[in-house]
Amino acid sequence: MDGEGRIRKMIDNLPNEIVVEEVSLRDGLQIEDRPFSVAEKLRFIRGMEESGIKRIQVGSFVHPKWVPQMANTDEVFAALERKAGITYTALVLNEKGLDRALDCDVALLSMSTSTTETHSRKNTNQTLAEGRERVQILIEKSLKAGVHVRAGVIMAFGCGYEGPVPLEVVEDLVDLYARLGVHEINLADTCGLANPRSIYELVARTRDRVGNDIAILLHLHDTRGFGLANVVAGIQAGATIFDASLGGLGGCPFIQNARGNIATEDVVFMLGEMGISTGIDWKGLSRLTLEMEELLEKTLPSRMAHLPDIAA
Amino acid sequence: MDGEGRIRKMIDNLPNEIVVEEVSLRDGLQIEDRPFSVAEKLRFIRGMEESGIKRIQVGSFVHPKWVPQMANTDEVFAALERKAGITYTALVLNEKGLDRALDCDVALLSMSTSTTETHSRKNTNQTLAEGRERVQILIEKSLKAGVHVRAGVIMAFGCGYEGPVPLEVVEDLVDLYARLGVHEINLADTCGLANPRSIYELVARTRDRVGNDIAILLHLHDTRGFGLANVVAGIQAGATIFDASLGGLGGCPFIQNARGNIATEDVVFMLGEMGISTGIDWKGLSRLTLEMEELLEKTLPSRMAHLPDIAA
Repeated sequence: MDGEGRIRKMIDNLPNEIVVEEVSLRDGLQIEDRPFSVAEKLRFIRGMEESGIKRIQVGSFVHPKWVPQMANTDEVFAALERKAGITYTALVLNEKGLDRALDCDVALLSMSTSTTETHSRKNTNQTLAEGRERVQILIEKSLKAGVHVRAGVIMAFGCGYEGPVPLEVVEDLVDLYARLGVHEINLADTCGLANPRSIYELVARTRDRVGNDIAILLHLHDTRGFGLANVVAGIQAGATIFDASLGGLGGCPFIQNARGNIATEDVVFMLGEMGISTGIDWKGLSRLTLEMEELLEKTLPSRMAHLPDIAA
Repeated sequence: MDGEGRIRKMIDNLPNEIVVEEVSLRDGLQIEDRPFSVAEKLRFIRGMEESGIKRIQVGSFVHPKWVPQMANTDEVFAALERKAGITYTALVLNEKGLDRALDCDVALLSMSTSTTETHSRKNTNQTLAEGRERVQILIEKSLKAGVHVRAGVIMAFGCGYEGPVPLEVVEDLVDLYARLGVHEINLADTCGLANPRSIYELVARTRDRVGNDIAILLHLHDTRGFGLANVVAGIQAGATIFDASLGGLGGCPFIQNARGNIATEDVVFMLGEMGISTGIDWKGLSRLTLEMEELLEKTLPSRMAHLPDIAA
């Protein structure tokens, strides 16, 4: 193949647009000790909207005893003035949470289950089989209620406890989700153990397995620093939606010093440089990251928010 | 194409091995105020050898008035016990430096010129045309002396002063280098302005222009955080050698807060995870990074050196 052919091959594989879902208010804040009030969360949601974010994960409906930071999720939804063109999403773990989410009229719900016994036990106190049944019930009930469903495979690229995850377990869940008719499948690199090759391979396999009607979403953590490389590999293989978190807020309870999700402003900036539109203003987001840093009194991993022309 | 076909396409494009050239003692240290003695530099060279590095950039032969940190490069070469299988490299800027390098019996020399008038003027006080002539003389003299030549295009992906760089200027240098018969062409992202798409495009174009006998090397800075994504894109397009720096030491004089070269241990670790061998032990390198941090009394950007299982 000549050079022009090679270049075209790369360019042809790149989409014009990618959807970025902002998850800092859920996956980011849930490990922070400082409580965030309804007003503070609404302030960040407004900031995200102003920066052009189209999908905002507002919180999760879990028991406040386990994740106190999420105790006010219902209140945030009640107080939220929903803007046209923006999707406000949430995460549910069980039927009680789902009922709360439906009461709050959440249009897009995220529900997942694990791929390893150890994580499943620690996360939900269930066996793999019980978790699979739980998520199936959640999906069926959500679809019946007319909700847009993203179904997740937790630790799809490796487990912080058990290491490698059998491909059959991942593919069994993918097949279940496809059969149930979910709208999106989330391959979650929960601990940041994926690499560009494993991302490419699993996304390409999944793409092939589920066809083009189900969107593939990647939830990436930047633990070992190749989160953005994983984004590019995921796009090359057909993923079209990416979770990301303001400033890279978050972490992983299994790996000390681990970073959080990939930083939204960094992903958005990189994609923009590559000619891929997200509709998002990375400078606005970077300013929001600086606000978050002030509240948390710490520096977040974000690269773009700390380059000198941002503060101006 | 089916999933297996897609996966094979990605895997077939990945080489089994990549060469990593360690440049922290040159590109990293040259911006540090703390002077490094001959003994200290030798200590780091030994540490790199013990970690499996096969190519070590020992320093540059430039006027000590401009880069005092490099004043002892001749002494380091004189005191260095050269090990079989390891290539000790250096950078030269002009004929005087080349004569010093040849006196030191350096087997692989790096020489470059700029792509923009502003940078050329500031870096060497020459016009573009003068710089082109200078590097041509250096290359011819080096090849005549039997030296392995890597010829570089500075700011190949954009200039910290002038912004975009005309493709014709880059390709004119590439053609000159190929015609002169250099062994390697270094496309240098001097300020960290490249992105995975521009990397892929320029490497693929260059690969096509110069054929397979000339190796393509990428010199990458991690200014905006997509250094590792750029590595993957470069490999996909045919680059086989990468500069990297212990801990990500270094910077860019044109962009405040800019990071240095991509961190050697991070690159090595990522490639290993992808099944691409470098022959290098990232844990050994990470320990060396921690030693460098102690000497410099600052934390370097390295990701892998700061994960908890390294210090043990």
